[in-house]
Amino acid sequence: MYYETFRQMKKMLVQLDKWLEMAAAFAQAKSFDPDIFVGFRLAPDQFAFGRQVQSACDTAKLAAARLAGKEAPSHPDTEKTLTELRARVALVVAYLDGFSAKDFEGAGARVVTQPRWEGKVMSGADYFLEHAVPNFFFHLTHAYAILRHNGVNVGKRDYLGALSLRTP
Amino acid sequence: MYYETFRQMKKMLVQLDKWLEMAAAFAQAKSFDPDIFVGFRLAPDQFAFGRQVQSACDTAKLAAARLAGKEAPSHPDTEKTLTELRARVALVVAYLDGFSAKDFEGAGARVVTQPRWEGKVMSGADYFLEHAVPNFFFHLTHAYAILRHNGVNVGKRDYLGALSLRTP
Repeated sequence: MYYETFRQMKKMLVQLDKWLEMAAAFAQAKSFDPDIFVGFRLAPDQFAFGRQVQSACDTAKLAAARLAGKEAPSHPDTEKTLTELRARVALVVAYLDGFSAKDFEGAGARVVTQPRWEGKVMSGADYFLEHAVPNFFFHLTHAYAILRHNGVNVGKRDYLGALSLRTP
Repeated sequence: MYYETFRQMKKMLVQLDKWLEMAAAFAQAKSFDPDIFVGFRLAPDQFAFGRQVQSACDTAKLAAARLAGKEAPSHPDTEKTLTELRARVALVVAYLDGFSAKDFEGAGARVVTQPRWEGKVMSGADYFLEHAVPNFFFHLTHAYAILRHNGVNVGKRDYLGALSLRTP
């Protein structure tokens, strides 16, 4: 289910791009600088909007790379505008598009680590469920919540996107 | 991976219980009524804290039941205090504990529906990835964000809980 989950993350990043577009349109309609959103946050010691977007992007990108045993491209967190954040999202959407189901064969048994764990490791399966998926949704939802809190009219449909509903 | 993901959801509901405990302790330390948290929200037309907790609980409970072909217990959304919300979380944690990996055999191929879909259906696999998992984390993270926004000192470790790190 790794591949399918990364497809879903990609879908949600496409939704995130729509929220960014809605935020820019909201700013234009109210005649304020759209890029002030980048610094908004819900608590003074929490990541600001721009960092939440970057973190959602990095969580998806790094998890896909680690679970497929690939080197992830580096994105240096320099975005200061909504337009630049949209470009960052587009980069990660394109990166995730390059993976196939075959890339994740044996992913659960991989040994994963990152600098913050000070030499400790996790299995790919544990890392994916305990760290990558919860963190991805954490940062994605915070980005959504910061926009909503500041008046952007994002709703649950903009969050979930189109569902694969069918007639029985 | 259905079973493992529900185990992870259960773990995150246990974390949510800790945030509720932290919110109550924060209120006590600052000498205000802890139950005013229940009505807090990030936007006037968004679910309040209590409803976010109920929704996270229901998303996990209903998804597990639907994917296992069981009838979920009904929880009537009457909670008005942090203590009652903690009891609601405990009910769902116990409910999720009753599932085994065997319960989810064939889950992806099940036909899932709910009243809001007006007769349409989704496969279990699509419902799980496109609806259940994103919604669970959406409501869970909003509960966290509302507390954090209002001064409760929850942090990323309280969100993720203990990780299965090991020495290589």
